[in-house]
Amino acid sequence: MIIICEAKATETQIAAIQRKIQEAGLVVHRSDGVEYTVLGVVGDRKRVDIGSISMMPGVRDVVIVSTPYKLASREFSQEDTVVRVGEETLVGGMDVIVMAGPCAVESAEQIESSAEFAASSGAQILRGGAFKPRSSPYSYQGLGVEGLKLLRQAADRHGLAVVTEVMTIEQIDMVSEYADLLQVGARNMQNYPLLTALGHAGKPVLLKRGMAATIQEWLMSAEYILTEGNPDVVLCERGIRTFETATRNTLDLSAVPVIKHLSHLPIIVDPSHGVGTRRFVAAMARAAVAAGADGIMVEIHPNPDKALSDGPQSLTFEEFSLLMNRCRIIATTLGRRLGKVK
Amino acid sequence: MIIICEAKATETQIAAIQRKIQEAGLVVHRSDGVEYTVLGVVGDRKRVDIGSISMMPGVRDVVIVSTPYKLASREFSQEDTVVRVGEETLVGGMDVIVMAGPCAVESAEQIESSAEFAASSGAQILRGGAFKPRSSPYSYQGLGVEGLKLLRQAADRHGLAVVTEVMTIEQIDMVSEYADLLQVGARNMQNYPLLTALGHAGKPVLLKRGMAATIQEWLMSAEYILTEGNPDVVLCERGIRTFETATRNTLDLSAVPVIKHLSHLPIIVDPSHGVGTRRFVAAMARAAVAAGADGIMVEIHPNPDKALSDGPQSLTFEEFSLLMNRCRIIATTLGRRLGKVK
Amino acid sequence: MIIICEAKATETQIAAIQRKIQEAGLVVHRSDGVEYTVLGVVGDRKRVDIGSISMMPGVRDVVIVSTPYKLASREFSQEDTVVRVGEETLVGGMDVIVMAGPCAVESAEQIESSAEFAASSGAQILRGGAFKPRSSPYSYQGLGVEGLKLLRQAADRHGLAVVTEVMTIEQIDMVSEYADLLQVGARNMQNYPLLTALGHAGKPVLLKRGMAATIQEWLMSAEYILTEGNPDVVLCERGIRTFETATRNTLDLSAVPVIKHLSHLPIIVDPSHGVGTRRFVAAMARAAVAAGADGIMVEIHPNPDKALSDGPQSLTFEEFSLLMNRCRIIATTLGRRLGKVK
Amino acid sequence: MIIICEAKATETQIAAIQRKIQEAGLVVHRSDGVEYTVLGVVGDRKRVDIGSISMMPGVRDVVIVSTPYKLASREFSQEDTVVRVGEETLVGGMDVIVMAGPCAVESAEQIESSAEFAASSGAQILRGGAFKPRSSPYSYQGLGVEGLKLLRQAADRHGLAVVTEVMTIEQIDMVSEYADLLQVGARNMQNYPLLTALGHAGKPVLLKRGMAATIQEWLMSAEYILTEGNPDVVLCERGIRTFETATRNTLDLSAVPVIKHLSHLPIIVDPSHGVGTRRFVAAMARAAVAAGADGIMVEIHPNPDKALSDGPQSLTFEEFSLLMNRCRIIATTLGRRLGKVK
Repeated sequence: MIIICEAKATETQIAAIQRKIQEAGLVVHRSDGVEYTVLGVVGDRKRVDIGSISMMPGVRDVVIVSTPYKLASREFSQEDTVVRVGEETLVGGMDVIVMAGPCAVESAEQIESSAEFAASSGAQILRGGAFKPRSSPYSYQGLGVEGLKLLRQAADRHGLAVVTEVMTIEQIDMVSEYADLLQVGARNMQNYPLLTALGHAGKPVLLKRGMAATIQEWLMSAEYILTEGNPDVVLCERGIRTFETATRNTLDLSAVPVIKHLSHLPIIVDPSHGVGTRRFVAAMARAAVAAGADGIMVEIHPNPDKALSDGPQSLTFEEFSLLMNRCRIIATTLGRRLGKVK
Repeated sequence: MIIICEAKATETQIAAIQRKIQEAGLVVHRSDGVEYTVLGVVGDRKRVDIGSISMMPGVRDVVIVSTPYKLASREFSQEDTVVRVGEETLVGGMDVIVMAGPCAVESAEQIESSAEFAASSGAQILRGGAFKPRSSPYSYQGLGVEGLKLLRQAADRHGLAVVTEVMTIEQIDMVSEYADLLQVGARNMQNYPLLTALGHAGKPVLLKRGMAATIQEWLMSAEYILTEGNPDVVLCERGIRTFETATRNTLDLSAVPVIKHLSHLPIIVDPSHGVGTRRFVAAMARAAVAAGADGIMVEIHPNPDKALSDGPQSLTFEEFSLLMNRCRIIATTLGRRLGKVK
Repeated sequence: MIIICEAKATETQIAAIQRKIQEAGLVVHRSDGVEYTVLGVVGDRKRVDIGSISMMPGVRDVVIVSTPYKLASREFSQEDTVVRVGEETLVGGMDVIVMAGPCAVESAEQIESSAEFAASSGAQILRGGAFKPRSSPYSYQGLGVEGLKLLRQAADRHGLAVVTEVMTIEQIDMVSEYADLLQVGARNMQNYPLLTALGHAGKPVLLKRGMAATIQEWLMSAEYILTEGNPDVVLCERGIRTFETATRNTLDLSAVPVIKHLSHLPIIVDPSHGVGTRRFVAAMARAAVAAGADGIMVEIHPNPDKALSDGPQSLTFEEFSLLMNRCRIIATTLGRRLGKVK
Repeated sequence: MIIICEAKATETQIAAIQRKIQEAGLVVHRSDGVEYTVLGVVGDRKRVDIGSISMMPGVRDVVIVSTPYKLASREFSQEDTVVRVGEETLVGGMDVIVMAGPCAVESAEQIESSAEFAASSGAQILRGGAFKPRSSPYSYQGLGVEGLKLLRQAADRHGLAVVTEVMTIEQIDMVSEYADLLQVGARNMQNYPLLTALGHAGKPVLLKRGMAATIQEWLMSAEYILTEGNPDVVLCERGIRTFETATRNTLDLSAVPVIKHLSHLPIIVDPSHGVGTRRFVAAMARAAVAAGADGIMVEIHPNPDKALSDGPQSLTFEEFSLLMNRCRIIATTLGRRLGKVK
């Protein structure tokens, strides 16, 4: 912690600040600059309240040096974390992983044909919502446990792992029965009781970035899971809220290299929710792979025009197939491999 | 619903759109403008998927006419909703209500002296967190049920009602035992299972605006509670996230007149979280009353420099007292009354 | 300047950083914390490039201690700057100043009736655009110099000063002939050649905040004018761009107390552009005065429904009159005086 | 234009609205929905003021159907515009164009070595600032006309075209003497007098997106240039301002497919200003090409640690060389060609 004093701070004020720090058992180093006096504090900063120091007379600013997350930081582990999903899929390693499927599980036929096509195109993980968080109480809310069963059966028939959202603590056990990767939606990124419970779930967690979450807050939410003993967290960029209205959200692809720099956790990208309309999904999925993402999560639907939920952002099978071919080459350019090898 | 066709839409495309609407049992009116053809759709719009229509060839844009919330809308009730909190406090009526207290309940002495001062200054409701959502797992998390008891006892001794946060469905019963107004924090504004459960809580709810929530989404979250049968929702503006870093959040005071225009629900303002530093709280509290808010929620602390949580944004008793005097006159200017009459 | 080293920075890296600083003729103080080594740099920081230091191996972060603006800072002057506009209006002193008038000057009748009403209600300054920056080339662009003349004549007849926008360097002389206060629009807040030229204009400048400008950038733009020798800058908050679409911009009223804390310059508020619709203007004007603004700038129009530019955000004379009465009392509450004393 | 009436609008109110429209010589079609009455207006909407209609009693909302830009729209030209820069570089065609060079021209040696390396790596256009807009008046402001000469000479020696910024109307002629592509910086995107003057410059214009500009406003600024007779506008995405502070701006790559959908103008991406730090530039440059950009503009510097301006965001020659190799393959994947063929 570094305390920057006001230009006009008096010696009495500076002495009072130093005393307060020392009384907390910390060590202070003082530097007198041309314009400002700076106090460097050495020791465990939890012993003092930063806020109260920042309000002391003569204090201009308090700078926190250490990151608020530890286990999620690159400093904690220089080596990239690789998360095993299901029996054989490794996220965060050499492979760029593809998760595909419909926004919501709607019927046995729909999920079966999606799973079949996803698998045949090289995807490793089947996505599909059974419990849907909807901003309107009047919108379609998902098939529930019935949807989970259909999802699992379709995935098993085609050798895919399963990712799906869990919305409450009570759902964790039930969803864990059917899914290999438990998704936390953007709206729950700071639902701390849920994160804490997922720290004990015994399954890897896909943590979506909140719409207004800074990258630092996102890593702090990951820390909630890690600190409870679950090391298997995959981050997912899905767009942040900005003033631009041409797309549903603004997909922040720079989060990919930033996360790689700050953390050892894998990061994937969900372009479908990022842009919110099919027209722009493929371009952003390609860009995500080019930016160095460890995977992409793409919505596909056998018949997007009839989808009950988020149809217009789902790719048709044909569009998805073309996308896979292009992404495969982009991944190769970066020395990686995209999609399942058959 | 209104469908705007592309300038170059062909007759065949327009006919296909019209057919799709009619097949869903809805009626279409066609207007041919100089540049565009517009199709006005009459009937229950839930019968068609807006997304799929927006992706049909020849469609440029689809405009939704009706609001996605009903019970929360001004059209549903021209008359302002007045919410009774505890036995005698009415939020949304002639009185501008003052909620005051520390960020977190820390000790019997702290909450007792806060309650005493709040009551003697004219506040009607005592605030104080027992369960605290913190962005870092390493921060102070609150006293839990012990905090609730201290809060209730202090409030009772001074004739105050109690507002405090409920973070999970499981906490609702317990918190309801001690509180008169159940607060939903900004991070939970779109925690739909929690909102649904609060629809059956039998207590009024204080719904804080999410950091990235539009006013429309906020009203849709209120709708989740209303539609389950609980009509007693009070909205609370507490700042939105913007690019500005001089304040913790950007307090959006224009939300006050906007909510008054769009909805019949009462709205209060929390300037403490909005600005995040004591220096700016009083100015924004005064501004909130001047903008027409139905109440303010202000953090006070007998000794802000020693607070365990959010101390630097808490007013001292002296600052609070001066603030109350000024706000009383501002409320009077608007034909209202602020604070308890003794 | 403070340099925070990475947790794993080697002694060789730290030595290289220190050498680089010392070679620039600056002094370094080193503090070794539990987790990090921190280097405090004393001396004129312009001698080294912060960016290059931040990219040196072993550097985690570089913190700039001093503010990038000097003349605009509160540290430069503890005393509030009072700007004289015209012969007798003082902005930034005890009086809360009211600037009123139409968005654009449209005709002799329109500006005359606006001036008459503004003056009779207590306003001190007449506003009105002669050159209008419009986001579409197809929108009404203003009356030009003819508008300036009408504005001046109307103001003179009613004892008002004149504020109007100057869009280019070439317009400065001409506009200065007619106006007492030269307005820089939000879109020109970072038009540095224009700001530099205004530093020599010999007239006070009203500097509107850019839509995406931080408060720090705004003060740095003021610095451009001050550093050229013009000390008379009045700041004007007019709303920033956020994700919220219910209002045209989000009026950031917390800028008022923040500016008062960071700077000695006066700050006024323009609620009309902030919210963009008449319905919400009065509430925000009242809030601005309550927040401590040194003035408000309000659009009024004898017949808003017929206005050629921004009519829907203009108050009618009746609405303005009621607003003035309320604001007068709010100002008094804060120990100030609003509007001209007759 | 479509007028949506309030649910409780009376027949008298609706009649008054219809009358107002008809008096302006426009035709109204009325549709009575279950909840709302909708009025479709046919004719030239400039004949009525939308704002005043939106404030009439009984009006809930007014929807503008037509886009505010014409010449910039995809509807105006289905065919992509290809802009010739210098003698042989075509932007917007099959080639993905690379613009490279230092942030600011600093010396003959620096620009010469940058030009040499840029050309040898396949870049077609040399960038370099001679006039620099700086947010602080105390920062390096550029070499001026001397810089332009150095830039031109270096470019000529290596067969490159030149792009550089023009900040004021007065600079246009001088800069045009030396540059092939005139850059409008983000802070000037809504400097309408400058845009209008560039409409007569006889040189192509590179229009950077403003930090807070929506895509629609950006196209409206392009319209200012197009409507004056200059058809050669290249758009440049360079990051928008959001709440995220881990990067200087948030590079909005979805602008690439969105612009391709809405407009026929070419769009390039500047990842250097988008992220603001060298570490993340290459990832975003690759992503830009993968998203379908018509070019990239990358800062390179022979010795970034010694750069006078924006050094830390400049790539070294080695980093740039690796980037070019990867981008070449990504472009090929999309059926395009990147960089000069030798």
